[in-house]
Amino acid sequence: MTDKNNEKIDKNKEEPGGLRVKPINNGTVIDHIAGGQALNVLKILGISGTTGATVSVVMNVESKKLGKKDIVKVEDRELREEELNRIALIAPAASINIIRNCRVIEKRPVDLPDEIVGVVRCQNPNCISNTHEPIKSRMLVKVKNPVLLRCLYCEQPLANGIAEYLI
Amino acid sequence: MTDKNNEKIDKNKEEPGGLRVKPINNGTVIDHIAGGQALNVLKILGISGTTGATVSVVMNVESKKLGKKDIVKVEDRELREEELNRIALIAPAASINIIRNCRVIEKRPVDLPDEIVGVVRCQNPNCISNTHEPIKSRMLVKVKNPVLLRCLYCEQPLANGIAEYLI
Repeated sequence: MTDKNNEKIDKNKEEPGGLRVKPINNGTVIDHIAGGQALNVLKILGISGTTGATVSVVMNVESKKLGKKDIVKVEDRELREEELNRIALIAPAASINIIRNCRVIEKRPVDLPDEIVGVVRCQNPNCISNTHEPIKSRMLVKVKNPVLLRCLYCEQPLANGIAEYLI
Repeated sequence: MTDKNNEKIDKNKEEPGGLRVKPINNGTVIDHIAGGQALNVLKILGISGTTGATVSVVMNVESKKLGKKDIVKVEDRELREEELNRIALIAPAASINIIRNCRVIEKRPVDLPDEIVGVVRCQNPNCISNTHEPIKSRMLVKVKNPVLLRCLYCEQPLANGIAEYLI
């Protein structure tokens, strides 16, 4: 979905009292993250700070839609769809804005894929994915909202507290 | 140390191209954090995002002094000196600005205390502070720069990779 609106206008509407973080010229904006989940979003995206990317984060700002929300802006990097969709694990209402030359060139919700590989650890300590075998965790997405995962190997379900099981 | 300068003027000088995160009205600004250490600073301060505080973070922005730096702004909360000084463990060049009514009322560097309690885990797995005993880790600060810690219980030193041992 393409949205021709300028990002700045869009955001000021959402955040009364003005923007906390200025619009970026190029990169990816992840908006409408559930309040308090921004650090988990960074974890899912593999951004630890030491990656060198210029990243801005605001946590727990007012949102009409969510009450409190977080926003993450990653400059000069257009994150891939498969990376971004994993965010739906912990922030199902998140929306993605790809920015080029100060304009929003793509705007879309996150959409959980059918399978999540190497992102969430199985909660069964005896599962083969939790041993020292060279095996990546593989979780099937059985229900998207509220999220219900099932381990491909041992069939253990995972629904609550997914953030605690992020690898 | 009191500084009468307006924070905005101060920051624009430091960050060419304008502020990424807007000045806050009240709270604590931690500036000149070594690039990539902001998430560890949040960890040291016990801010996980689910604490409800409005927090802004920028990572890896240009700094004349540090090359790349991070900035953390915590709104409506004046962090205590003892909390803030722990930051020197991982960001010895950090500076603290306490903001009230849009003005910097205090500006000072971080200064590591002589002892750090309950913040850094001893790297000796057999240390009593790593067992299930109800004992908090206690690290003596032997050298402030570069940081050298020594466990009060088992005398194991800790100098490199302190961020990995944050509790």
